[in-house]
Amino acid sequence: MIGIGLLGLGTVGAGVVEILNKRQEELKALTGKDIEIKKVLVKDINKKREIDLGENIITSDFEEIINHEDISIIVELTGDLEQSYRYIKRALNSGRDVVTANKAVVSKHFEELSSSAAEKNLGFLYEASVGGGIPILKPLQEALTLNNITVVQGILNGTCNYILTKMFYEGLDYGEVLKTAQELGYAEADPTADVEGYDTLRKLRILGTLALQGEIREEDILLEGISKITAFDIEQIKKMKSTVKLIGEAKELDEGFTAVVQPTIIKEDSYFANVNMAFNSVVFSGDNVGELKFYGSGAGKLPTANAVLSDVVDIIMGSYIKRNPLGERKLKNLNTRIKGEYYLRISSPIEEILKNIESISKELLSTNDNIALRTKEIEYIEIIKLLSSLGVHRDKYFLARILE
Amino acid sequence: MIGIGLLGLGTVGAGVVEILNKRQEELKALTGKDIEIKKVLVKDINKKREIDLGENIITSDFEEIINHEDISIIVELTGDLEQSYRYIKRALNSGRDVVTANKAVVSKHFEELSSSAAEKNLGFLYEASVGGGIPILKPLQEALTLNNITVVQGILNGTCNYILTKMFYEGLDYGEVLKTAQELGYAEADPTADVEGYDTLRKLRILGTLALQGEIREEDILLEGISKITAFDIEQIKKMKSTVKLIGEAKELDEGFTAVVQPTIIKEDSYFANVNMAFNSVVFSGDNVGELKFYGSGAGKLPTANAVLSDVVDIIMGSYIKRNPLGERKLKNLNTRIKGEYYLRISSPIEEILKNIESISKELLSTNDNIALRTKEIEYIEIIKLLSSLGVHRDKYFLARILE
Repeated sequence: MIGIGLLGLGTVGAGVVEILNKRQEELKALTGKDIEIKKVLVKDINKKREIDLGENIITSDFEEIINHEDISIIVELTGDLEQSYRYIKRALNSGRDVVTANKAVVSKHFEELSSSAAEKNLGFLYEASVGGGIPILKPLQEALTLNNITVVQGILNGTCNYILTKMFYEGLDYGEVLKTAQELGYAEADPTADVEGYDTLRKLRILGTLALQGEIREEDILLEGISKITAFDIEQIKKMKSTVKLIGEAKELDEGFTAVVQPTIIKEDSYFANVNMAFNSVVFSGDNVGELKFYGSGAGKLPTANAVLSDVVDIIMGSYIKRNPLGERKLKNLNTRIKGEYYLRISSPIEEILKNIESISKELLSTNDNIALRTKEIEYIEIIKLLSSLGVHRDKYFLARILE
Repeated sequence: MIGIGLLGLGTVGAGVVEILNKRQEELKALTGKDIEIKKVLVKDINKKREIDLGENIITSDFEEIINHEDISIIVELTGDLEQSYRYIKRALNSGRDVVTANKAVVSKHFEELSSSAAEKNLGFLYEASVGGGIPILKPLQEALTLNNITVVQGILNGTCNYILTKMFYEGLDYGEVLKTAQELGYAEADPTADVEGYDTLRKLRILGTLALQGEIREEDILLEGISKITAFDIEQIKKMKSTVKLIGEAKELDEGFTAVVQPTIIKEDSYFANVNMAFNSVVFSGDNVGELKFYGSGAGKLPTANAVLSDVVDIIMGSYIKRNPLGERKLKNLNTRIKGEYYLRISSPIEEILKNIESISKELLSTNDNIALRTKEIEYIEIIKLLSSLGVHRDKYFLARILE
């Protein structure tokens, strides 16, 4: 018997219980063991719930879980940051394997938790933290034994992708789509972490650090969210026979790396243009295997729970890399070298701005209520400097890389 | 030390040697062991080769390999069918784990070899046999523990996909493109196995049998190749804002399955339309994880060798399913129920044919030198019967499913 301590019984937690119940037979056939949820940590034990877990399973006291003799795997799904960090540390310190879906905690404490688990010969797996249900971290790590991976890219946030897809296909403005997304549960009441790109950034931090085998911290990643995009921008992008996606990309360059999360304009018939709604996709290239692309549900109860349980199965079967998966390469941050052609739209144009902006323009797309242009190949940092020197406030422009 | 016996030193064999040499350090770090090629079986030991394997490694005598005490894994890459079957059987009977890239032998002897390996507690892995470098069989099998999989589809043959891509983008005729493909090494001198769809069929036999957990034999799969397609067909397909791909699909239906390999017309902005040239892609759906898509190099020296070596690593690490991965479901062949809308082109139209064909037509696309039409929703088998009753020879028509 394998005893599980489940921390959190929200959407994903409920999904874990549901799949465990319906796949008991198959799990036993594979692992030879019964997998039992022994304790579930919740905030409010009196809250009415749809799942019946049986007697004495639910608790609001973490000590009951950490002191439970039959629990060997802790599945952390609280969603909280500092609390979950303490739970994971205590779990590892008490000799438990840990599975989490919490990208924030993995991103923030990646090095410490990875080396702690490795030192103690414990599993610390987090497949669900990137790309929802897509099996990506495991194939990526397996590819690393046989390949140098020099680039990893992804559409990593379902909320942003849902909003951009809806704006593109329905011509709606950002605010309208966000509101619908919130009503339908595709966006949180406070959508900041998603739409400003922080969630994508954390996932890129995890993906990039693994892929390049050197630390890429959150603060190493250039970030532009999608909250400034307007229906006008989408119109211009459509005229370019293109669409726009929030893409995170980490790339090896000389002895260093570039890492950036930004709205990216891609041709309508390109691969990423086909990743719509709440779907995610991750692409990486190895020097032997070539380019690999992975696509699937980026979020959702059952896909995410599926990823969590695939980690649980790997721990039971011992099918994971039993050493610190993080590399020790010291890579320089070369983000100042990021350059390319960009789409830039500035609202409320002033003659002064138009005159100065023209120096970086390759093609002027509009000079009506908005200045919109396609830049020449230029360093990203130069555009930001120029906008700052012209006093263009962050709220007044939208900037997107053009990828062709 | 892990000793490898390599059977065959063609393109993929040379790739295996190359990757093993350059990734020794990483392989040792992961597995804790040196992986050494102890013997290589070739037909002609005197042939000049680019790789230097050292003294006494190359042999033309299989007995030297099977009797070698230090060889624990046999990597079978001969490409031959019956010979390789005998090699694999002898390898398993002598207690060796086996890795192969040979889809023909896996397809033909799938049940026997799978159960033989499982009985003997040996590894029998064949990741490279489907989808080249794409990690697909392992993720598919892992998904099966937590999911019922009811459909698997794929672009599984690089040669066909190269030809169809070139015809589509360059407007060339089939024969011209095939010739270029042969000159460039994308197609064999005798291209039958590829262009008539047999290669795709074998891969679908493997994928479908695993995914549906019940036997789908080669003869259970409906087959249409691509050799009858013309530039005229491509023109009609373009007018439908679509493209055409050779797609294999196995699907659960009631207590049975349908399995078919056929040219399939898909919208230009759909996912598979983006899988071009020699790339492959496999898509499957699980009831928990949802839809997953995998994309990568469908062939080639290093991608295929990478897949072979990932199997070798899994055997060394014990990271594979240690029981017969084939399910025991008895599924009925329901291919007679396959229906849909089809594109049908018949060369050299005769009034008689035109009159009879109109009964199944939804839209007549051309009545010039060729009759081309889009059928109503109709059973596939009905079209074949009609063509046969009208005496339309196989060489005179092209039939493709329209998927929307």
